[in-house]
Amino acid sequence: MKKIMLASIAISATVISFSASAQFAKPEDAVKYRKAAFTVTAAHFSRMGAMASGKAPFDAKVAADNAEIVASMAKLPWHAFGEGTETADTKAKPEVWKQSAKFKEAADKLQAESIKLVAATKTGKEDAFKAAFTATAGTCKSCHDDFRNK
Amino acid sequence: MKKIMLASIAISATVISFSASAQFAKPEDAVKYRKAAFTVTAAHFSRMGAMASGKAPFDAKVAADNAEIVASMAKLPWHAFGEGTETADTKAKPEVWKQSAKFKEAADKLQAESIKLVAATKTGKEDAFKAAFTATAGTCKSCHDDFRNK
Repeated sequence: MKKIMLASIAISATVISFSASAQFAKPEDAVKYRKAAFTVTAAHFSRMGAMASGKAPFDAKVAADNAEIVASMAKLPWHAFGEGTETADTKAKPEVWKQSAKFKEAADKLQAESIKLVAATKTGKEDAFKAAFTATAGTCKSCHDDFRNK
Repeated sequence: MKKIMLASIAISATVISFSASAQFAKPEDAVKYRKAAFTVTAAHFSRMGAMASGKAPFDAKVAADNAEIVASMAKLPWHAFGEGTETADTKAKPEVWKQSAKFKEAADKLQAESIKLVAATKTGKEDAFKAAFTATAGTCKSCHDDFRNK
């Protein structure tokens, strides 16, 4: 009975993976998509970084606009890490698939912190923005350390 | 007097171009960014295309989710077509810069139609979705025909 249950769970897991991958015709398409999503995210994140580090003057409206884009973009890349996309031209470490629960947790953290970052920018307070920016940047770094080759 | 005014307009236009380009450190970064934004847009657009063409069954929730992403993404690429980015590795035709008012109009059309597409998906009616999808796809094609090399 236990064996049947495990087999059933394994089949379900496979079906879930396939249905996630099925949104892309080829593994390369999924990799291209997730890289593209991160490229857009990074551009807007770095505009906030310039303000957080004092290289650019703080502008609450600019911070809020960029934070909202980052919060939207932060939802996107994860469904493109389906099974079969680990062998393509990618910097993703095998840990993305071997430790998928931990990877999902890291993805969730970015999304949660980026929503807090939007709220912080809307206070118009530079200190609140900097603190929330640092917390969000921490989720990027931590995930890159664990799941992305240099 | 007319000459001074024209010179003044030319200077203003240059300043605007520079401030738009200044969001990217290098022209290549702007090109990489706009390509990435279109890659993400195209992925979500094609998921709606599968439903619009009958290759995938119509699902109003899936259509709405993808339409909202397309409407958000549709705002992004345009600021990355600054002066100095026309000579990089790009499929963009020189007309993007030579006919910038017409290009802006094309960009605005996509944004307007993609907002209507979101509204159409929220009616839950397949016919409304298909009509709005076709209208939005028309703005992609028209802009590609005029401003993008094959």
